[in-house]
Amino acid sequence: MNQIVAELLTIGDEILYGQIVDTNSQWMSVELSNAGIKVIRKTTVGDREDEILAAFAEAEKRVDIVLITGGLGPTSDDITKPCLAKYFNCGLKINNEALAEVTEFFTQRGRELTEINRQQAALPECCEKITNAVGTAPGMWFEKNGKVFMSMPGVPHEMKRMMTDIVIPKLKKTFTTPVIYHKVIRTVGIGESFLAEKISGWENALPQHVKLAYLPSLGEVKLRLTSFGDSIHELQAESDVLVEKLKEIAGPFIFGYGEDPLEVVIGRTLKEKKLNISIAESCTGGYLSHLITSVAGSSDYFLGSIIPYDYQIKMRQLGVKPETLEKYGAVSEPTIIEMANIVRAKFNTDIGVATSGIAGPGGATPDKPVGTVWIAYSDKYQTVTKKLQLSKDRMINIKSASIAVLNLIRQSLPE
Amino acid sequence: MNQIVAELLTIGDEILYGQIVDTNSQWMSVELSNAGIKVIRKTTVGDREDEILAAFAEAEKRVDIVLITGGLGPTSDDITKPCLAKYFNCGLKINNEALAEVTEFFTQRGRELTEINRQQAALPECCEKITNAVGTAPGMWFEKNGKVFMSMPGVPHEMKRMMTDIVIPKLKKTFTTPVIYHKVIRTVGIGESFLAEKISGWENALPQHVKLAYLPSLGEVKLRLTSFGDSIHELQAESDVLVEKLKEIAGPFIFGYGEDPLEVVIGRTLKEKKLNISIAESCTGGYLSHLITSVAGSSDYFLGSIIPYDYQIKMRQLGVKPETLEKYGAVSEPTIIEMANIVRAKFNTDIGVATSGIAGPGGATPDKPVGTVWIAYSDKYQTVTKKLQLSKDRMINIKSASIAVLNLIRQSLPE
Repeated sequence: MNQIVAELLTIGDEILYGQIVDTNSQWMSVELSNAGIKVIRKTTVGDREDEILAAFAEAEKRVDIVLITGGLGPTSDDITKPCLAKYFNCGLKINNEALAEVTEFFTQRGRELTEINRQQAALPECCEKITNAVGTAPGMWFEKNGKVFMSMPGVPHEMKRMMTDIVIPKLKKTFTTPVIYHKVIRTVGIGESFLAEKISGWENALPQHVKLAYLPSLGEVKLRLTSFGDSIHELQAESDVLVEKLKEIAGPFIFGYGEDPLEVVIGRTLKEKKLNISIAESCTGGYLSHLITSVAGSSDYFLGSIIPYDYQIKMRQLGVKPETLEKYGAVSEPTIIEMANIVRAKFNTDIGVATSGIAGPGGATPDKPVGTVWIAYSDKYQTVTKKLQLSKDRMINIKSASIAVLNLIRQSLPE
Repeated sequence: MNQIVAELLTIGDEILYGQIVDTNSQWMSVELSNAGIKVIRKTTVGDREDEILAAFAEAEKRVDIVLITGGLGPTSDDITKPCLAKYFNCGLKINNEALAEVTEFFTQRGRELTEINRQQAALPECCEKITNAVGTAPGMWFEKNGKVFMSMPGVPHEMKRMMTDIVIPKLKKTFTTPVIYHKVIRTVGIGESFLAEKISGWENALPQHVKLAYLPSLGEVKLRLTSFGDSIHELQAESDVLVEKLKEIAGPFIFGYGEDPLEVVIGRTLKEKKLNISIAESCTGGYLSHLITSVAGSSDYFLGSIIPYDYQIKMRQLGVKPETLEKYGAVSEPTIIEMANIVRAKFNTDIGVATSGIAGPGGATPDKPVGTVWIAYSDKYQTVTKKLQLSKDRMINIKSASIAVLNLIRQSLPE
């Protein structure tokens, strides 16, 4: 079977001039790889017709699939669409379905459709319109001599939605791609190098046609097993056996598989166990509550939070004893125990969790440097605390501490 | 003066497959732009000789300067160096100065020089060696027919040090570069197309040597003015005049200039005015508090929040009147007014803000579809409310509503 190859073409001066970082192309690479399509080149050009047309022609010679992002906005510096019309030698014309969609988009938001927005429904006649479910610029699919050009908006969430819902499935239908099976194992609470050392024996014994990748992100390491073969069922069965062996070695760190992040896994468990939760978060400043409430349906188990950022608020609104704060300070085990217990009692929930620490850059003391964070979990059976020593970076501390609390919940929930 | 143009060529399978995000090229773009060199293309190819040689030849035709990163490591998959030797038709030979440097690098760290590392000192004879002050792979500078090829390691801190200390100064000596001035104007509360329509007269009257770009992101549109000329002071003065004119047309939407996001600008204003703030956020679930507390030093003006996610918590913990909730519902103007006023009183702050809405996907009613959000601002002079009709997407609704509150604070703060 021939390997199907793709080029990612990004159009936009803002990328060339370094005004924004291109995160789209990394995401697209991973998704295409998961679909058995290999990216062999990435190209970025500016908003100039000659450069765009040249890039189209070069890409067409090199690859089967050209995925274009950017340059579809309603303003005059966005010229991807006329360039595509010129390249494929056809006119721009209002597409009635696209017009209906963009009109609906504005109507729903109680806004008027301007002439500029109306022009977003003007598409090259030789393309297939691809619906943009979360924005106003439609995607455009072109086929020519067995090659596909697909143009998408550069706005990340619009592109991702379009790729996931329509483009990837359509590419899989259009091309014959090899059989690839991916299994993602998600771990939390262990660093990449420690995990690598722990599982090195297992890793070295993997069969030749199974590749392992470490995908670390803040507080988490994903392991991706990629198997190549002829039968998806055989690959899947083999992969399941490998994962079982992995669980024997690294089981306590594995919180799930596939797409669901930790907050989704925890939400599902809380729902199953019919438990609800409340939060008292200080140094994490709302981020922990945001993680929990980013999950659709979280109102089933999350009742509310208090963010007692100020010392006075810790006493007056939450109810931490002044003696505790005075004797041990806000960033201490006695205080964090009170915070978790009090929020659980006040909000009348099964579980209460709490954070208090020095996110930085200010606020450090000699015995409590930036990155010192106490976290606690409380239910009717137990109160569990943990002291974290994180980094010097404020945002990393906020996010890492929040993930550590999620992990503490995972480890502490009653059976 | 001719515009000097450059291409950034990244070599490495790990970028193509999406295993790492390429952050180098954004940094390089900004540095080159500041040096008056315009990046007109970015290219990424894998670790394969034919693709690398083809990319060299294409780039040589297009630009004056080709800046290459990656593929200089000591392992066998790194082949940039032999490709350069082949392209420039000269042999690889141990460079004594480079050998001394790499030996020194290992000696200093108390490590032995292996044969593999010794080979890092083997360079194409036709290049000028560029010292790597913080790593083992030297840079290589080639000149051919008035064009420059510069190869650097892909490790970000090694590349940055080499660019800053040697490459940029050397490029400025080699080429006559123009002066470029950038000014970024940040707007909120108006969509890209509406803004474009509003300022079209101003935009059309911009001088030829000044370019305008729209950079939209969730809830915000950045405008970037880029001016080309001979004197940085003249360009800056001219740009200031243009911005003054823009303020006459779109002043109410402009919240700042340059790097600082809205939460930083608001934090600075609150600090200056010696005002503090508390938050009652329901549908935004902690994200609004997170934005506010993501700013270092926010504890100077942010006292705390309550997140009354559950109906009961809205009454019992925050203190919204049961009659109000029963008569108008949680997502209503009377409720949001109470929420903002109560949190301000309870937390004893100058300002109280509140959010309540249907983030989705569940929770909609016929008269309150997903994306319906009420927000409110309260201080001792006034209470201001606003009803938003956002999207069907939960995360977009959470983030857009939070930014809308920041904008409401900006618009409502007392003089």
